[in-house]
Amino acid sequence: MTISMHSASVPTFTHILGNLSHCLDKAQAFIDARKVDPNAILNFRLYPDMLPFTKQVQIACDSAKNGIARISGVEAPKFEDNEASIAELQARIQKTVDFLKSVPADKLNGTEDKDITFPVGREQTRTMTGEAYLKHWSFPNFFFHVTTAYAILRHNGVELGKQDYLVGNRT
Amino acid sequence: MTISMHSASVPTFTHILGNLSHCLDKAQAFIDARKVDPNAILNFRLYPDMLPFTKQVQIACDSAKNGIARISGVEAPKFEDNEASIAELQARIQKTVDFLKSVPADKLNGTEDKDITFPVGREQTRTMTGEAYLKHWSFPNFFFHVTTAYAILRHNGVELGKQDYLVGNRT
Repeated sequence: MTISMHSASVPTFTHILGNLSHCLDKAQAFIDARKVDPNAILNFRLYPDMLPFTKQVQIACDSAKNGIARISGVEAPKFEDNEASIAELQARIQKTVDFLKSVPADKLNGTEDKDITFPVGREQTRTMTGEAYLKHWSFPNFFFHVTTAYAILRHNGVELGKQDYLVGNRT
Repeated sequence: MTISMHSASVPTFTHILGNLSHCLDKAQAFIDARKVDPNAILNFRLYPDMLPFTKQVQIACDSAKNGIARISGVEAPKFEDNEASIAELQARIQKTVDFLKSVPADKLNGTEDKDITFPVGREQTRTMTGEAYLKHWSFPNFFFHVTTAYAILRHNGVELGKQDYLVGNRT
């Protein structure tokens, strides 16, 4: 099997989103066990002008969802950005995975050289080929927000290790 | 051009290592401007049982270096893990990029189904195909440590934005 735009992208996103969901299970267990106000985690930022936990999870989902939508040309579902609990963030992750899995492989394959134009900030756009966009924008952005979500949980004492991020609840 | 094991891997690592180096330049400028003890950054951890900044940068380099070495079969240079300054971490990043660029593309291409056996912790190994190893182990591990290094800098007040991580000093 040769690596393809589909095989390079969808399994990477769904695998790590599954692991993120596993980390959120552990966050919920921590909240329940310690009787922590969930908002102490959901609204936590590593620095005042960084985004809070909820936003990190939302953007992780969106970077996968919008990346695959832009590359494939398949329209992505819109989410309201109104999640207010770990359970609602879990539902968003699940909806994201459902969308990623619904995109036919042949809509992604062969897009290596396709021009992808995407927003950067509020007023600019950027154009990259499909392969460059996946490697140099979509993946780094996705992993950035998943890892920052993980770092916020760790910083707040949730018992996680890198295996939870890399392997999730698989063995 | 079709995506290949070489095109999927080496440019992803070198691109982000270049951006990490750019973030380290900003960290050095911060240390100089505020007359900060460099060890306050180099030894900083986001949680007592997480790894400090220096180690995050070292492992980011090693996950790229060892990933490409394992997939290609080209022996990787060994580093001493004795960096004690931002400048020395910059040198390690540069040596890593030099190694990645030195690996011939044809040693990486066609390795999608090659069995890669790698250490997990101190006593275990795991085996994955080349493509799965790259996507589900090497990339997540690499981005994890780069992002955690970034998060440590941000948490300590270094003025960085996601563009520094995504684009570096390119425009």
